[in-house]
Amino acid sequence: MSNPLAVGATIGILGGGQLGRMLSVAASRLGLKTHIYEPGASPPAGEVAHRVTTASYDDVAALTAFGQSVDVITYEFENIPTSALDLLEQLAPIHPGRQALATSQDRLTEKSFLQGLGLTTAPFADVPDMAALEAALAAIGAPAILKTRRMGYDGKGQTRIKTADDGPRAFADMAGAPAILEGFVNFSHEVSVIGARGQDGSVACYDPGENLHQDGILRMTKVPAKLTASQRSDAVLIAARILNALDYVGVMGVELFVTPEGLIVNEIAPRVHNSGHWTQNGCTICQFEQHIRAVAGWPLGDGSRHADVTMENLIGDDMAKLADYAKTDAAIHLYGKAEVKPGRKMGHVNRIFRA
Amino acid sequence: MSNPLAVGATIGILGGGQLGRMLSVAASRLGLKTHIYEPGASPPAGEVAHRVTTASYDDVAALTAFGQSVDVITYEFENIPTSALDLLEQLAPIHPGRQALATSQDRLTEKSFLQGLGLTTAPFADVPDMAALEAALAAIGAPAILKTRRMGYDGKGQTRIKTADDGPRAFADMAGAPAILEGFVNFSHEVSVIGARGQDGSVACYDPGENLHQDGILRMTKVPAKLTASQRSDAVLIAARILNALDYVGVMGVELFVTPEGLIVNEIAPRVHNSGHWTQNGCTICQFEQHIRAVAGWPLGDGSRHADVTMENLIGDDMAKLADYAKTDAAIHLYGKAEVKPGRKMGHVNRIFRA
Repeated sequence: MSNPLAVGATIGILGGGQLGRMLSVAASRLGLKTHIYEPGASPPAGEVAHRVTTASYDDVAALTAFGQSVDVITYEFENIPTSALDLLEQLAPIHPGRQALATSQDRLTEKSFLQGLGLTTAPFADVPDMAALEAALAAIGAPAILKTRRMGYDGKGQTRIKTADDGPRAFADMAGAPAILEGFVNFSHEVSVIGARGQDGSVACYDPGENLHQDGILRMTKVPAKLTASQRSDAVLIAARILNALDYVGVMGVELFVTPEGLIVNEIAPRVHNSGHWTQNGCTICQFEQHIRAVAGWPLGDGSRHADVTMENLIGDDMAKLADYAKTDAAIHLYGKAEVKPGRKMGHVNRIFRA
Repeated sequence: MSNPLAVGATIGILGGGQLGRMLSVAASRLGLKTHIYEPGASPPAGEVAHRVTTASYDDVAALTAFGQSVDVITYEFENIPTSALDLLEQLAPIHPGRQALATSQDRLTEKSFLQGLGLTTAPFADVPDMAALEAALAAIGAPAILKTRRMGYDGKGQTRIKTADDGPRAFADMAGAPAILEGFVNFSHEVSVIGARGQDGSVACYDPGENLHQDGILRMTKVPAKLTASQRSDAVLIAARILNALDYVGVMGVELFVTPEGLIVNEIAPRVHNSGHWTQNGCTICQFEQHIRAVAGWPLGDGSRHADVTMENLIGDDMAKLADYAKTDAAIHLYGKAEVKPGRKMGHVNRIFRA
């Protein structure tokens, strides 16, 4: 190990949701502590972390104390304010690094980066103003989708354009936020690769999973995904190329559209990913521990798959079915959120099918 | 589910060692909080628990506040003072129950109970005084082993008697503590069954594991154990008989000696057990989650085994080999203990061999 964190060291995690919660649990397996930084009260990760700081991302004193208390910093979401990162990186290493964050925080930067690597993305155009939108619609055509460049997730911050006439309404929906127009891709299904890269530059990818969305939210991931052998190989190579290009440390989620012409990169997430939750029951080392191993400077672990798995998210009222799930052979993972809200991810269920 | 704990409920755990730590992690998967009660400072379980109370078992105020803050109580070790249990059982249900604790806290009670069920144990005799020891040695013969009735673990509180002449020295070693004499059993190897029983009376046992001890401490457990099909079946039936007889709720470890004449019960532990750690990487639902499910009133989960596993304890200086283990395909589980001491259990390593 190249300077790995020792037992008892502390990993700081920005964000206290379910991803931070499962990262904390994985860190505990390696004898490491976690310190959660989260603006919201009673974060899910707080129940299993050694320490929690409740403060906003512009609280310089809190950020400073947090940064001084940890040995390394990681995060469970990509929309961390730049000013907070500027301060924290003076105090402790941040993994994955700034380049990965800057790339994934902005849809325009991300798509340009991916195309620069020779990868295929949906057609896109920068939309700083209404004139640019008109030009983009003329070039890309309708239907298309207008998205804010920053801060989008789970279908938020985007609007569909059915015909060119929808342009002004769609532009108004952006409320002045910088946007990009993306053309529609004619894909049969979406898969994602959960890839990991260690501090020693080694790369390990999990088997691709097939994703099913509903209302813009991930509903289910199945492994193995419906892919030919060469598509499966392509998917892993695409993920590896991105990880290496970013000199990445940690786990990344890479979403890919499957088309007859090949795989198209939809988006990347510089963190553990909902579509990788199946690894908790399908692999010896899950995505959460793999991320912690990378961030902590440990060698990557064994991510080979020992079963077929179906991961289903428990969203909002799905929790009413909990008693039924509990009676089955499934593995249940809940996030400790007491209040059920529509669209809120409350947990997930992994069903294992042995080969 | 018969009145299962809801998301956000709190399980109180008496004892904050590695077993409490891994129980806390398992509880988090089911959306449950844990509150650790532990006299020692900075307990391993404290890093992953929602709350920790540091107080002794005779601190009435602390015990009362703890009991009032939790929905159910369980424990990671069996030597809990009776006075603490008397107080706590007024405040919250305790699982496994008092009968299981009373039985396993006292070697004489335990062996009498097991014989009462028609199970075979090593020959034994109550040794309240020196005259009783002489009579016991005459009946059982030497070599034999003299053990304190209470508070023994990992080879502590016991002394070997090679010949009858050793009697006075051995009796003096007990320092006045009530003791029992146990005859030696001619066994080929030891196995253990990790059994679970839910609040609905359902029983589920994991595949028996084969245990290798060194200096009185568990060194390694392998599954599958070296057993014939009928021995394997006997082992599970013995565990089930014990669980049912105690109206048990939770996970229990049952250690068995394998002899040509059949299986002999060595001892029972009313808790998750070191020899069950392999389940973390060999099963969908590990012993820790199975225990939490039982205690929380959930249905038991799927404990079937998907791989062969070798679990090796990391004891004391074994930690020096950590970097080597990290490079392998093994799953590493550390307890977050910063200080390495001889004989101290620092973690364990599960090696998976796929069928």
